[in-house]
Amino acid sequence: MTTFGYTLHATSGAARRGTVTTPRGLIQTPAFMPVGTAATVKAMQVRDVAATGAEIILGNTYHLMLRPSAERIARLGGLHRFMGWEGPILTDSGGFQVMSLAKLRRLTEKAVTFQSHIDGSRHELSPERSIEIQNLLGSDIQMQLDECPPFPIAEDASLESLELSLRWAKRSKAAFDHLADDGRALFGIVQGSVYPDQRKRSAEGLMEIGFPGYSVGGLAVGEGQGAMFETLEVTTPLLPRDKPRYLMGVGKPDDLVGAVARGIDMFDCVLPTRSGRHGQAFTWDGPINIKNATYQDDPTPLDPESDCPASRDYAKAYLNHLFRAGEYLAATLLSWHNLAFYQALMQRMRTAIEDDRFEAFAADFLNRYRSSS
Amino acid sequence: MTTFGYTLHATSGAARRGTVTTPRGLIQTPAFMPVGTAATVKAMQVRDVAATGAEIILGNTYHLMLRPSAERIARLGGLHRFMGWEGPILTDSGGFQVMSLAKLRRLTEKAVTFQSHIDGSRHELSPERSIEIQNLLGSDIQMQLDECPPFPIAEDASLESLELSLRWAKRSKAAFDHLADDGRALFGIVQGSVYPDQRKRSAEGLMEIGFPGYSVGGLAVGEGQGAMFETLEVTTPLLPRDKPRYLMGVGKPDDLVGAVARGIDMFDCVLPTRSGRHGQAFTWDGPINIKNATYQDDPTPLDPESDCPASRDYAKAYLNHLFRAGEYLAATLLSWHNLAFYQALMQRMRTAIEDDRFEAFAADFLNRYRSSS
Ligand SMILES: [Zn+2]
Ligand SMILES: [Zn+2]
Repeated sequence: MTTFGYTLHATSGAARRGTVTTPRGLIQTPAFMPVGTAATVKAMQVRDVAATGAEIILGNTYHLMLRPSAERIARLGGLHRFMGWEGPILTDSGGFQVMSLAKLRRLTEKAVTFQSHIDGSRHELSPERSIEIQNLLGSDIQMQLDECPPFPIAEDASLESLELSLRWAKRSKAAFDHLADDGRALFGIVQGSVYPDQRKRSAEGLMEIGFPGYSVGGLAVGEGQGAMFETLEVTTPLLPRDKPRYLMGVGKPDDLVGAVARGIDMFDCVLPTRSGRHGQAFTWDGPINIKNATYQDDPTPLDPESDCPASRDYAKAYLNHLFRAGEYLAATLLSWHNLAFYQALMQRMRTAIEDDRFEAFAADFLNRYRSSS
Repeated sequence: MTTFGYTLHATSGAARRGTVTTPRGLIQTPAFMPVGTAATVKAMQVRDVAATGAEIILGNTYHLMLRPSAERIARLGGLHRFMGWEGPILTDSGGFQVMSLAKLRRLTEKAVTFQSHIDGSRHELSPERSIEIQNLLGSDIQMQLDECPPFPIAEDASLESLELSLRWAKRSKAAFDHLADDGRALFGIVQGSVYPDQRKRSAEGLMEIGFPGYSVGGLAVGEGQGAMFETLEVTTPLLPRDKPRYLMGVGKPDDLVGAVARGIDMFDCVLPTRSGRHGQAFTWDGPINIKNATYQDDPTPLDPESDCPASRDYAKAYLNHLFRAGEYLAATLLSWHNLAFYQALMQRMRTAIEDDRFEAFAADFLNRYRSSS
């Protein structure tokens, strides 16, 4: 049985080129993980998600525990079999969505109770229950339950929240050690908002417990790219060199480049699929809105450098037409294009790190990406 | 340059096994043509439509003339290139949708004028303009403009409508001969409601003009399967043996089997894709509604005899979940399954005709298909 692990192959500045090993396959890092919220990467077939180059996808504990439920998925053979994805799956703890989507939340030392946004049913999520759910799903990379504080948050409130998350980290670890199959991994989550001392306290507390990987949470919540990068600069150096680092819920293409430059290995974000469903396409020359009338007669491909079907088989005018006509295929093609763009960006970053020219790559990328805006 | 043609290979009773030849490829008949209304077979990629076995698809003149317009599609290289489908395309004349979708219709000897259901703009559709549009689209098999009478319709009103359609057939043919590229074909449309004498009058009038294929129109409009079959029984024997016969807008799987038994070669219908989007799946044991709670925990495939992704990669429980969660993939997977089912049905019919056992095949099919209802 392959165990979970991380190998660092090369660095370029603070940027890292590595491989995450799991029993279900390897993940070349830096890696972007498409989000499959409700056991589907929206508007895509998983074989097509794999064709874009994705080696791991994410599932959302909150959505899946409510519908169709973790127990039902377990009875049906686990999340991989349920949704037809054979590679590794990472799940979040459910905490973030409880805070952003559920109603009537009540947080105690023991757990958070809440009402489903789907049918109003009441649920409790504790560190132990979150781990139980993630194991019922069969998740390969699991997250501790943490409290996800809002931004901005006062220093003392942030510290109190961080300490609760550390106590929950310990309980998550104990539950995981009791429940999880061989080869699965549990990540701790560094919190502390934009306060450097608190990021240090959180990282040290987690490392004392000991995890095979570390997530950076509490960012991309409104603090802005500058503050996010500053926080990464004081956080990643605290983390062990021989473990993967996952920046949760990030982000735009330029966020990814800046975060890789600051030592991040793994990302997830709904942006490529959500933007795609709304007509925004990412290109090397910056994002465009394909619904714009300027594309109605445009015979050129969305991105001549992409070999995804949206770029390879159709003109911009066709994509524009599909959005105007409200066709399903519009969402599929732009989601596909955006996921393929994100994977191509990760591939270019991995190559740039291998060649030890990441700084030059990042400057060139940003120069072109921002040129049209 | 390959010209349009039809070869009859075998018969079994009145059922016919043939091949339609077009410059863009062969069509094995009896054939089912998926409907790509607005330059997309809804919720599907065309390469996946081809993977189900479809050799020809249908485009709707009414929808395309309104959005994005025939002139725009022509500027972009024609409908095949626009939507990425390399095989033959059949287009209707637009007449049927004008009658069912457009507002403020006014019919004269010259043309029908109407208001777009999309933006209220005014348009005129004459036999000449319909052919012009179909040629701008680059359609391989075009339809004459006809009047599509409602059901029921009085005998004298039906006769009057039929005579107008015959005059329009003549004008359509003249316009087509003037405009169309080599290898394209124009079909005449037999009307006459459920009146055998009028079907005869219509067929003879069309054959006098002379077409490379004949459509049967004015059926599946509420007359019921019995009346439809009776009408086919008096209509197909009137048509030339060496030309293909296309039953427009039909139908359910048992409609197709009964119509093939009565000498029909080609079909189109939105049913497999429209039903699919609403959770209805066709199986050899009859249609089922996958949204039904009985499938929530069902680990079995939709149809063990199908190798489409919906049947091959997922359990019924997953498809049920996708519909409950309102996911795009639900529509894609069930549309795919239904299109694959329709193509498999056509393939089984073609084989049964080749083996001269169509009557037995039809009886077995219907016995099983109707057993659960
Ligand atoms: Zn692309
Ligand atoms: Zn199937």
